[in-house]
Amino acid sequence: MTMLKDPSQKYRPFTPIALPDRTWPDRVIDRAPIWLSTDLRDGNQSLIEPMDAEKKMRFFKCLVAVGLKEIEVGFPSASQTDFDFVRELIEGGHIPDDVTIQVLTQARDDLIERTFESLKGAKRAIVHYYNACAPSFRKIVFNQDKAGVKAIAVAAGKTIKRLAAAQPDTRWGFEYSPEVFSSTETDFAVEVCNAVIEVFQPTPANKLILNLPATVECATPNNYADQIEWFGRHVDRRDSVLISVHTHNDRGTGVAASELAVMAGADRVEGCLFGNGERTGNVCLVTLALNLYTQGVDPQLDFSDIDAVRKVVEDCNQIPVHPRHPYAGDLVHTAFSGSHQDAIRKGFAQQKDDAVWEVPYLPIDPADIGRDYEAVIRVNSQSGKGGITFLLEQEYGISLPRRMQIEFSQVVQRETDRLGLEMTAAQIYQLLESEYLQASAPYALKGHRLQEENGTSAVDVEVISAGESHHWRGIGKGPLEALVAGLPVAVEIMDYSEHAIGAGTNAKAAAYIELRVNGGRALHGIGIDENLTTASFRALFSALNRALSQAESQAA
Amino acid sequence: MTMLKDPSQKYRPFTPIALPDRTWPDRVIDRAPIWLSTDLRDGNQSLIEPMDAEKKMRFFKCLVAVGLKEIEVGFPSASQTDFDFVRELIEGGHIPDDVTIQVLTQARDDLIERTFESLKGAKRAIVHYYNACAPSFRKIVFNQDKAGVKAIAVAAGKTIKRLAAAQPDTRWGFEYSPEVFSSTETDFAVEVCNAVIEVFQPTPANKLILNLPATVECATPNNYADQIEWFGRHVDRRDSVLISVHTHNDRGTGVAASELAVMAGADRVEGCLFGNGERTGNVCLVTLALNLYTQGVDPQLDFSDIDAVRKVVEDCNQIPVHPRHPYAGDLVHTAFSGSHQDAIRKGFAQQKDDAVWEVPYLPIDPADIGRDYEAVIRVNSQSGKGGITFLLEQEYGISLPRRMQIEFSQVVQRETDRLGLEMTAAQIYQLLESEYLQASAPYALKGHRLQEENGTSAVDVEVISAGESHHWRGIGKGPLEALVAGLPVAVEIMDYSEHAIGAGTNAKAAAYIELRVNGGRALHGIGIDENLTTASFRALFSALNRALSQAESQAA
Repeated sequence: MTMLKDPSQKYRPFTPIALPDRTWPDRVIDRAPIWLSTDLRDGNQSLIEPMDAEKKMRFFKCLVAVGLKEIEVGFPSASQTDFDFVRELIEGGHIPDDVTIQVLTQARDDLIERTFESLKGAKRAIVHYYNACAPSFRKIVFNQDKAGVKAIAVAAGKTIKRLAAAQPDTRWGFEYSPEVFSSTETDFAVEVCNAVIEVFQPTPANKLILNLPATVECATPNNYADQIEWFGRHVDRRDSVLISVHTHNDRGTGVAASELAVMAGADRVEGCLFGNGERTGNVCLVTLALNLYTQGVDPQLDFSDIDAVRKVVEDCNQIPVHPRHPYAGDLVHTAFSGSHQDAIRKGFAQQKDDAVWEVPYLPIDPADIGRDYEAVIRVNSQSGKGGITFLLEQEYGISLPRRMQIEFSQVVQRETDRLGLEMTAAQIYQLLESEYLQASAPYALKGHRLQEENGTSAVDVEVISAGESHHWRGIGKGPLEALVAGLPVAVEIMDYSEHAIGAGTNAKAAAYIELRVNGGRALHGIGIDENLTTASFRALFSALNRALSQAESQAA
Repeated sequence: MTMLKDPSQKYRPFTPIALPDRTWPDRVIDRAPIWLSTDLRDGNQSLIEPMDAEKKMRFFKCLVAVGLKEIEVGFPSASQTDFDFVRELIEGGHIPDDVTIQVLTQARDDLIERTFESLKGAKRAIVHYYNACAPSFRKIVFNQDKAGVKAIAVAAGKTIKRLAAAQPDTRWGFEYSPEVFSSTETDFAVEVCNAVIEVFQPTPANKLILNLPATVECATPNNYADQIEWFGRHVDRRDSVLISVHTHNDRGTGVAASELAVMAGADRVEGCLFGNGERTGNVCLVTLALNLYTQGVDPQLDFSDIDAVRKVVEDCNQIPVHPRHPYAGDLVHTAFSGSHQDAIRKGFAQQKDDAVWEVPYLPIDPADIGRDYEAVIRVNSQSGKGGITFLLEQEYGISLPRRMQIEFSQVVQRETDRLGLEMTAAQIYQLLESEYLQASAPYALKGHRLQEENGTSAVDVEVISAGESHHWRGIGKGPLEALVAGLPVAVEIMDYSEHAIGAGTNAKAAAYIELRVNGGRALHGIGIDENLTTASFRALFSALNRALSQAESQAA
């Protein structure tokens, strides 16, 4: 239970392959690789709570909307959920003509048969099979020699080819992964892949996908690039195979490994949105795509509304995107320091439309991905104890969610600019109150009735607007969903949280909501009440009224 | 507000420097660089809520304990909090003899004077100054030509040298950063640095630190390595300067950039624990250090108890470590898939003490950093709706925190292995009840009294143990801290959370606690009660009793 002073006896360094004439360090990526999302397979299998059919479908549609053309949708021979999901995709007609689904199977005949069963009637599909080739697996897990490992890959390939021929109405693609490629002797990986090539007899028109996973990242990323370049030089029929890479992030360099591998000749990249996947995750496709974009290369994926994509992924995976995640985190388009804010302000002022993007500290124009640049001040940062969040928490028991802290700090900034001085806790709370808690126009919530049975909520709210009373009714899977269903405007809830203020019988609930009205910018609302449902409804009306007022004042 | 189909007009690709005879791709890192933590400076300035003096001191002591020998502690000329903290470090004698503090200042005489004032009486200190050299800053922010930029660096260097000479009892080090080095013409960066070298006249015995920041990451990491190698070839007096790198993570490749830069000749790396820092963060020092460790190289930093370090950092930064963060995330030593679990089990079985580490899917022995390997099953993953978390949430309104989900899934796994079949929601809840809610030995909580005044809590609990009644009293800054102070065993709270079950007057509170007893393994407890304080106390006793029982059964 302690780190070794001399770890060299327990951990051996990676042995680089000799490639002194490597060419990849002189290359620049000038077009997007083929992307494969494995969110519904590698991503899904690494979740504490794997997705149900509904979530899988929601995620699949999101991937299609983003522009993914190859999507690994599951491991149908290992999971009934996955089998049923593949059937639903095919039978329900959910797969666009230009999208190819992919499924994974182990190299075993019974599992391969079951896999083909799941794919009956598919217009296009890629069957992806794998077996472990790395020395540690040969020795520890399977007790196989090299010939045995190769024989498994060949035999399974023959089964796949035969079963594919028996379902000729599908346009088939095939993918083989020599597992833990990065820890396998590269020449042996080539040997096995060449044997698989012999089975499938690919042509330039019908390429075989050879996927070379860094299942566990085991060295600096330049080594992986060397392996990929070496592989590309030695594999048979290079013009008839697509080299695919699949990197994990155990050493925090999964993005670099994929990028250097593409420079080294890889044609295709497998990964997940926001880097979900086993352990440290698969490589993040969002980061890779936007890295291309900010170099002027069309990534062929659309993240114009990155927050909407993020919400789907967070809801389905139940794993948050980290506040410092490239391009998508809550804090990455934010400047706290005065000198950074100053430079950014000057940059925006000089940035002309249609000119090359040149705003300091912002590698991407946040507007391109549906975000804003946010300057966050710290009220009285000199004292170190006077920040907005700290004061509200200490004095009023209010804990604003992170994105709301950013939003509200801008409200405070406007006020301090106006007043030209620091604000007290009471002044800050007053500002919070007038901005959020008293936002009662155009719609003032008078009261609500709620009935719940068998998980279904029916809500009836009384609302006063312009002096007139309205009753809105809605039904949904919870009180908020029911309320949203009853509203006369299109509202999308982006985030919701609540906490208790105080304890025991005097406790109140504070509810926070982030929503978008008619697809506009996300805005927050707060509700405070002894009753949690009332608090959440108040929060929704607070956000709704703020959004409608801002839209009106912008239109005016 | 939308991504461009042709981004090449708005975003220009990075222009690589020509270095066809680069040598870094053939290098392997075989010893640790000099580390500099900038958690208290770059990290701190990027927080929504910057640290107060107490948190800064706690973080500083943690960095010293980890083994950092160079620590950037603030920007004293820009912040009174930072100035006071530097004074407290020096006057309070908190700096070990082998630790050097570093402070940042802009290249302005008044700020430099204030900086030296803050350092009076320091035994050793590094004064770190910078000015912006990159073209966009010259043009947009400062309206300066190259000569002007160089003159600023030289003039400030002279002031620093003069003021240092006036405080001869301190052993001085000097660091200069040509800001946004990565976006600066590399030959111009060398030109400015050579001028700074002329001022300081460093020798091999008294080296000048030249820090070359990738303030904003702007290209694939091999380009940064090329820049570093080129710089090292062209800078004057190479044997008298330390090349330091400082990478950010805007493209998700900050770790790779630092590693490739060290291969390219960098002597020193600046970063933050778990990758805090402006926007996407600075490079993560934990990842870099453990990447060395798993290659058999002593990183000179000690993360034997990584969870304790993580807790300090999370408490101070108020930013969570992502569940998939390399080495330290909640999910990274966890296997969900049956085949992974099988391979890992076989690996552990064949892993001999003192042999080379070779367990599949685990790049580090979790025990080396105070963690466990955790196999997580998904109860009835076939249905996709039957997971433990899902069932408890749907049927009982119980939302277990993530690490607790992992812990409890192992309890469930033991039970399903024993029963040989799937468990219903009621059976799972029963198991939760008997494992956590009924953990009342050795200490059964009978009742408590709580008095709070001016933020101080006084707690008096009645506890039955082995038939006898005990009264324990404690005082602290909140009820839980007070309770812990009154316990007869050393308890450290690692995590705490709570949520309401139900709403309105029938609502109950569910409290979850993760704690360590006498420095042992972290364990969870649950408490449910109408009263929130009671729920939290019950949770604490649940965890405490479980820890004491497990320790006893292991000793037996």
